[in-house]
Amino acid sequence: MSLKNDIIIRAAQGQEVERTPVWVMRQAGRVLKEYRDVRAKAGSFKGLLFQPEYAAEVTIQPVDIYGVDAAILFSDILVIPEAMGLPYRMDEGRGPSFDKVIQSKEDVDLLTTDVTEQLKYVFDTIVLIKNELNNRVPLIGFAGAPWTIFCYMVEGKGSKTFSKARAMAMAQPELAHALLERITDASISYLKTQISLGCNLVQLFDSWAGVLNNDSYNQFSLPYLRKICDAIQEVPTTVFALGAYYSLKEIAALPCNTIGLDWHMDPRFARSLVGENKTLQGNLDPAILYGDFAFIQKKTNEMMSAFEGKRHIANLGHGVYPDIHPDKLKCFIDTVKEYQYSKQS
Amino acid sequence: MSLKNDIIIRAAQGQEVERTPVWVMRQAGRVLKEYRDVRAKAGSFKGLLFQPEYAAEVTIQPVDIYGVDAAILFSDILVIPEAMGLPYRMDEGRGPSFDKVIQSKEDVDLLTTDVTEQLKYVFDTIVLIKNELNNRVPLIGFAGAPWTIFCYMVEGKGSKTFSKARAMAMAQPELAHALLERITDASISYLKTQISLGCNLVQLFDSWAGVLNNDSYNQFSLPYLRKICDAIQEVPTTVFALGAYYSLKEIAALPCNTIGLDWHMDPRFARSLVGENKTLQGNLDPAILYGDFAFIQKKTNEMMSAFEGKRHIANLGHGVYPDIHPDKLKCFIDTVKEYQYSKQS
Repeated sequence: MSLKNDIIIRAAQGQEVERTPVWVMRQAGRVLKEYRDVRAKAGSFKGLLFQPEYAAEVTIQPVDIYGVDAAILFSDILVIPEAMGLPYRMDEGRGPSFDKVIQSKEDVDLLTTDVTEQLKYVFDTIVLIKNELNNRVPLIGFAGAPWTIFCYMVEGKGSKTFSKARAMAMAQPELAHALLERITDASISYLKTQISLGCNLVQLFDSWAGVLNNDSYNQFSLPYLRKICDAIQEVPTTVFALGAYYSLKEIAALPCNTIGLDWHMDPRFARSLVGENKTLQGNLDPAILYGDFAFIQKKTNEMMSAFEGKRHIANLGHGVYPDIHPDKLKCFIDTVKEYQYSKQS
Repeated sequence: MSLKNDIIIRAAQGQEVERTPVWVMRQAGRVLKEYRDVRAKAGSFKGLLFQPEYAAEVTIQPVDIYGVDAAILFSDILVIPEAMGLPYRMDEGRGPSFDKVIQSKEDVDLLTTDVTEQLKYVFDTIVLIKNELNNRVPLIGFAGAPWTIFCYMVEGKGSKTFSKARAMAMAQPELAHALLERITDASISYLKTQISLGCNLVQLFDSWAGVLNNDSYNQFSLPYLRKICDAIQEVPTTVFALGAYYSLKEIAALPCNTIGLDWHMDPRFARSLVGENKTLQGNLDPAILYGDFAFIQKKTNEMMSAFEGKRHIANLGHGVYPDIHPDKLKCFIDTVKEYQYSKQS
């Protein structure tokens, strides 16, 4: 059965679209009271992840409430290291933390790449979502980029600098590559199963790209992103590397369909680096949504104009902040959907 | 009495130099056992700041131990908000936190810009340092950029996104500008006194530039950096805006002498944006110092080559990480000092 709204797929593939599609990073999340209610029932963030009915429910909420052009699986990039053998805790307000971290070749050798059984709760969630969505809009699957997952597996928690992870990359590059290879293999298997169950696009989140530079990104992130993109031929792929402006040109050479831009990048400059053969996704500064409705409309229209209607999927340049009023987010989404290039650009 | 080693001043002013000068952000700090010993005596980070003999001692240590081409005042950018009326605590491993934050015009009106008396302990420190240095090398003074100080005064602590600070900028721009004006006035007065006591250069640290974009940087940071640079004519000024690659061209138009580059920026690309009329400072990835000596030498030589010996002050692209072995830092410094453009580039 075909999708009733496939505008985001067509935009990713560079086909004609009647308007610019829109979804929002973290659209399924704390910004919605409906999400907070389900999370309260689930008891915790991980309780929500592990209970497919709840995870499916919050995935669907923004489709019903906002009319976004895609749902994105409610999950966490850290389910992969957990399935490989490093369990983590998610503490309210303090972020994730791992009791065990990777420090040696022996540690790497203990990690499994056969994650499918461990991640059954995610796959059950996808089945429920697909049933419930009933092809109204596409479902976006995702995984963390290997470099970002590596950062957590070595550092053991969030960090401003991820200096332990970078220390391993600099001082023990062979060990780092062995770990990155293993993460990559697990991620490909994970994404392939997501797709087999009906995910219509997949996005790779390289959330800690911003601690590297062009040289180290070329060594420790890009080859693994390339390996994943090469392996995923079934559906369009998006690479979103936060803070990796320094490597945008190289990222644009990946065999993916869409490049996510954070809010730092000027859309016109990004287009000049990326060329015409990729879709760009983004990139309103999420802090704009703290302004009033007129301000949000003005800034959203400016963003739309900067992308010039060419191969664009509208989004924020980062996940929506949890204290944004949902009506402000709706204002952003509605402004995108009502934007007409012919009149305004 | 004139400086025995003024190579960094000459480099900042674009004059001829016999070799590339070098200093290191956070050279006075935890990387040195000698620093940790003094800090233990002082009892705490703020105890160290507030006792001029101790603060002067750790300022001098890297000059004696490493032979760097400048000392940098041991202090903290947050002494300014404290002197203006917002005291802060510095908790080991958790960073700074403020009990009071700025939320209204009334809060702003309560802040003083007359900070000289409050900051007497810093000025006493400078006098001691200048005596002890005895003109061996220049002393670098510094302040936080107004945007960065604003971030702390509104957010109350460090943050990945500084979304409260950005919310004020977006939703209440007049209030934000009133606060930024006041921080700017206090900073100018602070820097002028530093200079009158003998600081030979000053650096502005815009540590949270990276949460903005070109549009918001133009509004909320650049005008205040400009006001400070305009006010400081006595000594060379350096602007170091971490993560502000998106506005490098505009930063290069400030009336300052030197632009600090973080480790993300490619030196040749930076030079192409900045032009020939500014000195560039930086920018080895501090994580390189986790590698072995041969690796550090190779990467340092590559960095030196990329700057092409033109108006360059060598430094890391961020403060040295506290767990780096001091001999690794010395290897970086020695490699810079021994580098010869004629032979290697």
